[in-house]
Amino acid sequence: MKFTQPIPTLCRDGDAIVILDQTQLPFAVVRQRLTGLVDAEHAIAAMQVRGAPLIGITAAYGVALAMQHDASDAGLDTALTRLAATRPTAVNLHWALAAMRAALHELPPAQRPAAAWATAERLRDSDEHTCAEIGRHGAKALLTRFAARPQALRVLTHCNAGWLATLGAGTALAPIYTLHAQGQAVEVLVSETRPRNQGLLTAWELAQAGIPHQLIADNAAGWLIANGHVDVVITGADRIAANGDTANKVGTYLKALAAHAHGVPFFIAAPHSTLDLACAEGAHIPIEERAGDEVREISGVDASGHPARVALVGATTAVVNPAFDVTPAALITGFITESGVLDADALAQLRSSAAPSVCPTP
Amino acid sequence: MKFTQPIPTLCRDGDAIVILDQTQLPFAVVRQRLTGLVDAEHAIAAMQVRGAPLIGITAAYGVALAMQHDASDAGLDTALTRLAATRPTAVNLHWALAAMRAALHELPPAQRPAAAWATAERLRDSDEHTCAEIGRHGAKALLTRFAARPQALRVLTHCNAGWLATLGAGTALAPIYTLHAQGQAVEVLVSETRPRNQGLLTAWELAQAGIPHQLIADNAAGWLIANGHVDVVITGADRIAANGDTANKVGTYLKALAAHAHGVPFFIAAPHSTLDLACAEGAHIPIEERAGDEVREISGVDASGHPARVALVGATTAVVNPAFDVTPAALITGFITESGVLDADALAQLRSSAAPSVCPTP
Repeated sequence: MKFTQPIPTLCRDGDAIVILDQTQLPFAVVRQRLTGLVDAEHAIAAMQVRGAPLIGITAAYGVALAMQHDASDAGLDTALTRLAATRPTAVNLHWALAAMRAALHELPPAQRPAAAWATAERLRDSDEHTCAEIGRHGAKALLTRFAARPQALRVLTHCNAGWLATLGAGTALAPIYTLHAQGQAVEVLVSETRPRNQGLLTAWELAQAGIPHQLIADNAAGWLIANGHVDVVITGADRIAANGDTANKVGTYLKALAAHAHGVPFFIAAPHSTLDLACAEGAHIPIEERAGDEVREISGVDASGHPARVALVGATTAVVNPAFDVTPAALITGFITESGVLDADALAQLRSSAAPSVCPTP
Repeated sequence: MKFTQPIPTLCRDGDAIVILDQTQLPFAVVRQRLTGLVDAEHAIAAMQVRGAPLIGITAAYGVALAMQHDASDAGLDTALTRLAATRPTAVNLHWALAAMRAALHELPPAQRPAAAWATAERLRDSDEHTCAEIGRHGAKALLTRFAARPQALRVLTHCNAGWLATLGAGTALAPIYTLHAQGQAVEVLVSETRPRNQGLLTAWELAQAGIPHQLIADNAAGWLIANGHVDVVITGADRIAANGDTANKVGTYLKALAAHAHGVPFFIAAPHSTLDLACAEGAHIPIEERAGDEVREISGVDASGHPARVALVGATTAVVNPAFDVTPAALITGFITESGVLDADALAQLRSSAAPSVCPTP
């Protein structure tokens, strides 16, 4: 069953690409037109696009935009280097840029623009297919595990790893969309995901799809898991080390600890491209430290429905703001991928099968 | 060394009491004058006063306010019943009301108003003394444990259990104030504490005292603990069961899980009055479910410094909002109390010594 994004997260429009500006959600649907390298850099760094798969594909299209202006070797190097620097943690970014480099660097400059567009389109189609397969495998695994369950399956997720984060149905939410399409009852507990509140995006996209959900403060996950309100936790991933340690949005680790303490299965849903086999373990994954204003300030809408940003503390308040944390493989029940649900050992075996072609190390 | 509150959290003014309205902090220092039972009920339920000790003492003064208007048996019963219903989780509330009832119910109505004021004042003085002793015992225990440490002691705390939560120096923050007064270097990591952001109060009160601190999103605690940025976690408590299981602001449990996973000591700082010996274990502690708007909306100040409230999601978004969670005794290194630092077994022994007189069960 094919999933169609209610609003495309990214689409080509002639010599430009048009993205859904996710910094304006959930209150306003605003599109941004990107025409060059600087636009693409900004879209990724400012999190107008977010989610590891969508970041990677946007970077690929960013190379195509750059090639229209300067397809020389220097121009290609500049585009790859600058796009790689936009976000340090998501491995898909490096994977997509490596794919673009491989496709372009031996071509004569005159052929690069068309080849760049074609390669970006191919990566895009591949992501859509990957999401569909993650949905199919994840739904099957959940149905098997919770076969006897009469009530709705209660899934807790963190951050946004739905269609908004990809070019298809999403990663963590793909199994949920698949179950819903199959007529299975699913309810989703959505953690707010401070400081950037990507959980609000998840609530918004679930509402669009008519899937019952409840928003919670990040702090509530422990109590809900301890008190039997959660059947399974599913999150996405920003980078998976070779041993299965997984970097994802900060706060994921705390949910994994709580799930483990109460025997609740904890799944990571992610494409092979999130695997970083060059990274032996989680301790080697660089963790992005983002600006303190993300914690000091918050955006919403005022009583008239107009966008409004308020300060929660004074600008001089010191802040520590790691954007990701690392969940050890030992806390992860399984990895829902496009090739099936794998444990950490099976994941590492991808090195010797499909992985080298799908997942060049950065 | 006596701690003086920079701004009194509660003081008597003739026939009224004046409280610091904590819903206006950290941006505005606003006082509210409470003259009757309804004012006191509102101040507690709307969290103008918050923190288990301050809630209890405010309720005691609320009885005194009520007695000025109706000191009959029915008036006393009404005051006790209505004040007990303002917040379901904090045991100090019930403890303070039990103390008021014990002091008043056998007196003739004409003597009740004066006796009510006197009893409330006595509870108030007792709380101030208790905080000082918690500070003294906690500081001593930390100095012993971290004697060889050359750098500043790095404490992670959650919610606000400082002077704002009490009539004295606080509970969780009292050892920090004591160490600071002794010239020991201390740094505090302050978790935001969504949904009500009481961490912002902690940052504010630490700034008033000149103690270095950094604000973090609640989600960041796992990463910071896992990566060696935290020497010790100290929080307050809203209710401690007889076996040491401890209810505190939602999110405390997740921090305790992370501390336990990384061998970081986790202390609860609380007066004996927080002990509920009638409650055998944490599973029996009622957990308050608060309004969903606490998660849907947030207060701050706009660019002009004016108070502003923004919506984060639409009003129809469903929310689950437990206000507290329960940390099992097994995750708690020790309880910093006015009689010393106790383990869960020693805490239970209070039943047979000081506890019965200090802590009547509700």
